[in-house]
Amino acid sequence: MKTIAIDAMGGENAPEAIVQAVLQAKAELKNTRFILFGDEEKITNLIGQDKERIAIVATTQVIKDEDEPVKAIRTMKDSSLVVAAQYVKQKKADALLSLGNTGSILACGIFIIGRIKGVARPGFMPTLPVKNSDDGFNMIDVGANAKSRPEYLLDWAKMAAYYAEKIRGVKNPKVALLNNGAESDKGDDLHQQAYELLRKSNLNFIGNIEGNELLDGKADVVATDGFTGNAVLKNIEGTSSVLIHLLKDSLLNNGPITKIGALMIKGALKGLISKFDVDKYGGAVLLGADAPIVKTHGRSDKRAVYYTIKQIDKILSEKIIDQFRQEFNHKK
Amino acid sequence: MKTIAIDAMGGENAPEAIVQAVLQAKAELKNTRFILFGDEEKITNLIGQDKERIAIVATTQVIKDEDEPVKAIRTMKDSSLVVAAQYVKQKKADALLSLGNTGSILACGIFIIGRIKGVARPGFMPTLPVKNSDDGFNMIDVGANAKSRPEYLLDWAKMAAYYAEKIRGVKNPKVALLNNGAESDKGDDLHQQAYELLRKSNLNFIGNIEGNELLDGKADVVATDGFTGNAVLKNIEGTSSVLIHLLKDSLLNNGPITKIGALMIKGALKGLISKFDVDKYGGAVLLGADAPIVKTHGRSDKRAVYYTIKQIDKILSEKIIDQFRQEFNHKK
Repeated sequence: MKTIAIDAMGGENAPEAIVQAVLQAKAELKNTRFILFGDEEKITNLIGQDKERIAIVATTQVIKDEDEPVKAIRTMKDSSLVVAAQYVKQKKADALLSLGNTGSILACGIFIIGRIKGVARPGFMPTLPVKNSDDGFNMIDVGANAKSRPEYLLDWAKMAAYYAEKIRGVKNPKVALLNNGAESDKGDDLHQQAYELLRKSNLNFIGNIEGNELLDGKADVVATDGFTGNAVLKNIEGTSSVLIHLLKDSLLNNGPITKIGALMIKGALKGLISKFDVDKYGGAVLLGADAPIVKTHGRSDKRAVYYTIKQIDKILSEKIIDQFRQEFNHKK
Repeated sequence: MKTIAIDAMGGENAPEAIVQAVLQAKAELKNTRFILFGDEEKITNLIGQDKERIAIVATTQVIKDEDEPVKAIRTMKDSSLVVAAQYVKQKKADALLSLGNTGSILACGIFIIGRIKGVARPGFMPTLPVKNSDDGFNMIDVGANAKSRPEYLLDWAKMAAYYAEKIRGVKNPKVALLNNGAESDKGDDLHQQAYELLRKSNLNFIGNIEGNELLDGKADVVATDGFTGNAVLKNIEGTSSVLIHLLKDSLLNNGPITKIGALMIKGALKGLISKFDVDKYGGAVLLGADAPIVKTHGRSDKRAVYYTIKQIDKILSEKIIDQFRQEFNHKK
């Protein structure tokens, strides 16, 4: 039996969307237990009668977006996130899911749950959409680390390639390095050295990828330093949201013929927007932590949380953490 | 009389689009001369009879996209780009326009034309679109430098703010630092130190901006290290082009009703796409070089080149380079 610890209080739609997603996932995942951390009364009311494989752990505090992450996890000992992380640390649960403050989830990973021995630094890894298929690609690190070193990027690429193969079913995933040009000597020292490490590794390294090629599907895994990865991930979100906003705006404010036309293309548009619906790929995984720690964004609805639970369940079924322990533990 | 040196051989539509744009601009800009560098016969045929304020300098070589930049400018001494840059160096022209290889244009800036005394490093600065106005914003550096230092970012921000004010007419431009979070202590050492320099400067510094906020119009000038700026700029291009591609695709391949609907929204869509038409803002300026050096992308058509010529003409009229010399020359 797998056990997932769920911070039921993080995000804008907590705890409703989270509890509903748990109930939906539970109906499918017969070998999985769920421990919900948060406001006992609210959660109990939402769950109703069906308590099979669901436990509630009452907590009294909630870490908010504006709270300083490290301070929050040190002082808010009875917060839903910290208690859930403690359960994972104490092996009372196998994985952690939260919709809360990214920095605090990261801090739980580093200071409470800890990293896999031999992995220098954990990195956050989302799965992002690509143009001409439903496969997507994994990018790591997107912001767990402001300062990166070449060997971090190698570790991240190894873990992400394994994830792409086992969880997303990509055979021999193509790994690329986000850089400022195609040639092998591009970039600053960090990226030149990371290039060499990746080239010498046994990964299927295809070389550098540039910022304009990310969504083309050329690579299944993109390794990047956490600073650039963070800027680029946020920029993908920002640029696509601005374009979709402008598109809706121009369809509504260009007279009656455009409006009728807009109704006629509604179905096609929905298809387009669902293409850029990152929810279906689940949340961002903190790879390198000593348990699956998955964060989905604070705006996540029931559907997004549901996909993320399924993703975590698959990570547990594939025993990815055990694999990483074998791969990295022998390193000093 | 201002004189613009124009590399007529760079880019996909050379020399036709370039010569046509020069003829169009010349009709408006009565105080400007144009020197076209390239294949004399082709250019002469395109110009026709109207030789007033136009000169041709015959060159025999063309630097291609795949040529290694520094080697190319050192060995291809009779290339249209190098000879044009020499004219600027020798004060036979006041500014340089090219659609060619970015690295070679940069190398011409550094090794032939040189930088303004007191500016540590030139940076490439495009003007990019924002969501709810036609104003756009300036981002610098987007790739002239793979390695950046905090004081470079300060110089770039100062020059870009001056440009935003004089050329784009933005009063007291808001300057932000691209970083991985809003708080002042965010980022690696480079960005923390750049933050302090910007905060202590007399710029209208509004703090950090994140990758998802760039197109929101919060800042008029965004300072960034050349590595991150390069990844983000290319990512804006890539993400918007993928979305527009997917949109067109879904409108054409969703049956006859969608197709008719698509015809009805065509006007609105054109408005949307022109919003993200970076051409109207002109090319990217290599700020910090000792003359206006402007690069527009290799796919530029006549219209894009025309806008870029008007942009250069305005930079010359506003005597921006003189201003930068005064600002920076007193520095060691």
